[in-house]
Amino acid sequence: MFFEGSEKKIEIVIRPGVPSLRTLGQDYWKALVHTARAEILSVIHNEQCDAYLLSESSLFVWDNRCLMLTCGTTTLVDAALKFIGDQGPSQIDFFSYQRKNEYRPNLQLSTVTEDLERLRALLPMKACQFGYLDSHHHFLFSMAHPDYQPEIDDHTSELLMYHISGPAADALCCSCQELSQIRQLLDLEKLLPGFELDDFLFDPCGYSVNAIKGHQYATIHITPQQSSSYVSFETNIDLGLEGAWIVEALLKRLQPRSWDTIGFNSSPQTPKRPYYLSIGECQVRLECGYEVIFSHHQDRQSQQLPVCWL
Amino acid sequence: MFFEGSEKKIEIVIRPGVPSLRTLGQDYWKALVHTARAEILSVIHNEQCDAYLLSESSLFVWDNRCLMLTCGTTTLVDAALKFIGDQGPSQIDFFSYQRKNEYRPNLQLSTVTEDLERLRALLPMKACQFGYLDSHHHFLFSMAHPDYQPEIDDHTSELLMYHISGPAADALCCSCQELSQIRQLLDLEKLLPGFELDDFLFDPCGYSVNAIKGHQYATIHITPQQSSSYVSFETNIDLGLEGAWIVEALLKRLQPRSWDTIGFNSSPQTPKRPYYLSIGECQVRLECGYEVIFSHHQDRQSQQLPVCWL
Repeated sequence: MFFEGSEKKIEIVIRPGVPSLRTLGQDYWKALVHTARAEILSVIHNEQCDAYLLSESSLFVWDNRCLMLTCGTTTLVDAALKFIGDQGPSQIDFFSYQRKNEYRPNLQLSTVTEDLERLRALLPMKACQFGYLDSHHHFLFSMAHPDYQPEIDDHTSELLMYHISGPAADALCCSCQELSQIRQLLDLEKLLPGFELDDFLFDPCGYSVNAIKGHQYATIHITPQQSSSYVSFETNIDLGLEGAWIVEALLKRLQPRSWDTIGFNSSPQTPKRPYYLSIGECQVRLECGYEVIFSHHQDRQSQQLPVCWL
Repeated sequence: MFFEGSEKKIEIVIRPGVPSLRTLGQDYWKALVHTARAEILSVIHNEQCDAYLLSESSLFVWDNRCLMLTCGTTTLVDAALKFIGDQGPSQIDFFSYQRKNEYRPNLQLSTVTEDLERLRALLPMKACQFGYLDSHHHFLFSMAHPDYQPEIDDHTSELLMYHISGPAADALCCSCQELSQIRQLLDLEKLLPGFELDDFLFDPCGYSVNAIKGHQYATIHITPQQSSSYVSFETNIDLGLEGAWIVEALLKRLQPRSWDTIGFNSSPQTPKRPYYLSIGECQVRLECGYEVIFSHHQDRQSQQLPVCWL
């Protein structure tokens, strides 16, 4: 019943003047997704964005930017290398590759070091590790064109939740769920008002949703399997400011034992509660101007840890 | 400069009536250690115990019991399988195999699952995992003869320290150290009064010491390398009772950012301090009667986490 929910992620901004990425067409993105060993399940569009729901997470394509998240044992680095090769390294304004600590890194088809070596063969990549290897940590490789500067409203916020519990977690583990029930369980209408939604229920369990509204996006991926449950919420709504209440709402509903937040020009806020414990945090400023913040929390001191029989 | 300090460990008690393990002779143990891809560096003896210092950790042999710890990328499971094969499974009263979470599990030559499968082919092994896979955790596989019961004074305590800091940590990283300086730095005479010591300084850094006194043993292994430093203290002194002050003394001196304690019929005590934080703990009772306790601590809330450039 084990599934690695933890995602790898690429975000790419192309140089001004390069034709819109949306004109590459669905067949191009289908082939790219396939390179990462995933498949496109469905797609929604609005005037600014094409949002593809994948067999393992999501792909968003805007005119000058794309973002791809893949979980499980997918090989996102292969898709990154194909994209860089197809477009040409000189056409890229900003490139980032992220990899979170996995539950079972041994099951992955490449190590972080191997991914970095392959990317560095094509692009001059800065690479850093946030946090200690023996606890929650996060890898970020990035490259920016000297002229590139993120726009003023360019925020990314990630909330990564581990070991969810309580009634919502129990319900999500059940294979009897329906899409409408999970939308209600997550209170998606309130969480993402006015967003167009595209969601999918996996067999026997697991849920993904893409949400878009103008240039805004949000995506949630739920791996409810006990002892390795994981829920990610990723968005360009600023979870440090207007979206801070969303973090509180999700923590309340999903009751994770621990969670990470990551922000690019955003400081996702964990609400102050006597029983929410900050384990640690760090931040770094990338040369192009992104302020990147990583933090790790758990729900209370002196947790009763599990003993699992193997 | 990376070295995996985290140890694998076997502890074996043989059936009453089986000839003393000490009569197997040094050549036998040399070959066994070699099977795990380590070497014997030196040995000390007293009337009850032979204590071998290894190129990667330690081996202790008593008449009816042996204990072997190996770190790095050693393959302790190979030595365990050879020992079980040589002695015959029916000659074993109690067998345990432990593996701690590693900084870089990808560098290990076998996974925990593979180790378990191979051991289960020879002995009916109970196996459990303490703690969450995404944080500090510990694997324990064990098998006990139905007649086996641990003696009343059979305690084992482990204190495993991560990311040491402060003046002692700085000094330990220096290749200019001498054995006498490190003994003083750790205050070994006070920590282990009356114990016979056998220690070794590795190049460019790293320190191991075996200590014996009657049936008592203690062993310390220091991997001081920054960003993956690790110090283990393992003993049959009860760190929950008469040895509780030793935990406090080591934490004070080595200032780890986080630490685990593991006890077999012992509850190693982390002193109560406003800035020592209990992250979580769990315990389990093995059928033969060992009460096993695992706990994880860190030195304070809201740690400033490192950002490491790769």
